[in-house]
Amino acid sequence: MKLGEGVEAAIHCAAMLAGVDGDATISGAAMAEAFGLSPSYLLKHLNMLSAARILESVSGPAGGYRLARPAERITLLDIVLAVEGREPAFRCGEIRRNGPVRLDASAYVKLCGINVAMLKAERAYRAALAEAKLSDIVAEYMTDADPRSVAAGCAFVARHQRPRKSSS
Amino acid sequence: MKLGEGVEAAIHCAAMLAGVDGDATISGAAMAEAFGLSPSYLLKHLNMLSAARILESVSGPAGGYRLARPAERITLLDIVLAVEGREPAFRCGEIRRNGPVRLDASAYVKLCGINVAMLKAERAYRAALAEAKLSDIVAEYMTDADPRSVAAGCAFVARHQRPRKSSS
Ligand code: FES
Ligand code: FES
Repeated sequence: MKLGEGVEAAIHCAAMLAGVDGDATISGAAMAEAFGLSPSYLLKHLNMLSAARILESVSGPAGGYRLARPAERITLLDIVLAVEGREPAFRCGEIRRNGPVRLDASAYVKLCGINVAMLKAERAYRAALAEAKLSDIVAEYMTDADPRSVAAGCAFVARHQRPRKSSS
Repeated sequence: MKLGEGVEAAIHCAAMLAGVDGDATISGAAMAEAFGLSPSYLLKHLNMLSAARILESVSGPAGGYRLARPAERITLLDIVLAVEGREPAFRCGEIRRNGPVRLDASAYVKLCGINVAMLKAERAYRAALAEAKLSDIVAEYMTDADPRSVAAGCAFVARHQRPRKSSS
């Protein structure tokens, strides 16, 4: 089982966007620079976050991305599902029906117990991700990460954020 | 995020082997037939379960597979890790270190908070799988699945199990 690498990038970008002033934006290129990623690779994931209405993209010369709602209302589950899709990791192929003895569909109305147990574990995973708010991730970063890293991160945001144009 | 299809096959085979009498075995070919899978595909996963000491393989004409320990002491976590590997699904690529500001390694002694939160959710997933004993899966199948399916499954096991030779 493996999550795509885009999840790490997507969460880091959302956390960075939680640090901008007001409704300022940061460009995809700047975020790609911040994490040493290819801009086109990152763009794909930023677009997924926009499609899921976690980010808002603003076009034009002062354009870029910002959070579509407060970081208190964005969870790691929102981000993981936006990037990885909503399907469960365990996908029952109904192999119980493939054997030599053919029973009609009425014998399989109940979900297979193995599927039930696997999906129950996934609910525990998702519940844990749903408890992790982006705002908490950012608050913990500010207090717990190395101060040099926090200072560099904040300076990067200050330098790259683009205030919303007053005319818009 | 997706689990390999082998997980479904591996759990079904282990559950079937929990139903044999004493230390009888069932061949890989019979289990492949039971679930409509290619024998070579299934063999790969049966070998993974054997390597993880969940199954024991017995060679020779009366050979096949049996559980290496009682079903009470086999969990879905054991099986999932045997088939999917023990690495976490979320693999931190340390992208926090890739930015334009280079800090020395001492700034990154603590795990990234995003990594910590993702691994915490995986612990919840694994804990739920660790609670699901193979013996419970089988007991629930016997009481809750459609009686026609249970009867067909038990008949299949009775027909295909190979008693251990008294000489061995
Ligand atoms: S038939 Fe898919 S998990 Fe049992
Ligand atoms: S650097 Fe990998 S999760 Fe933050």
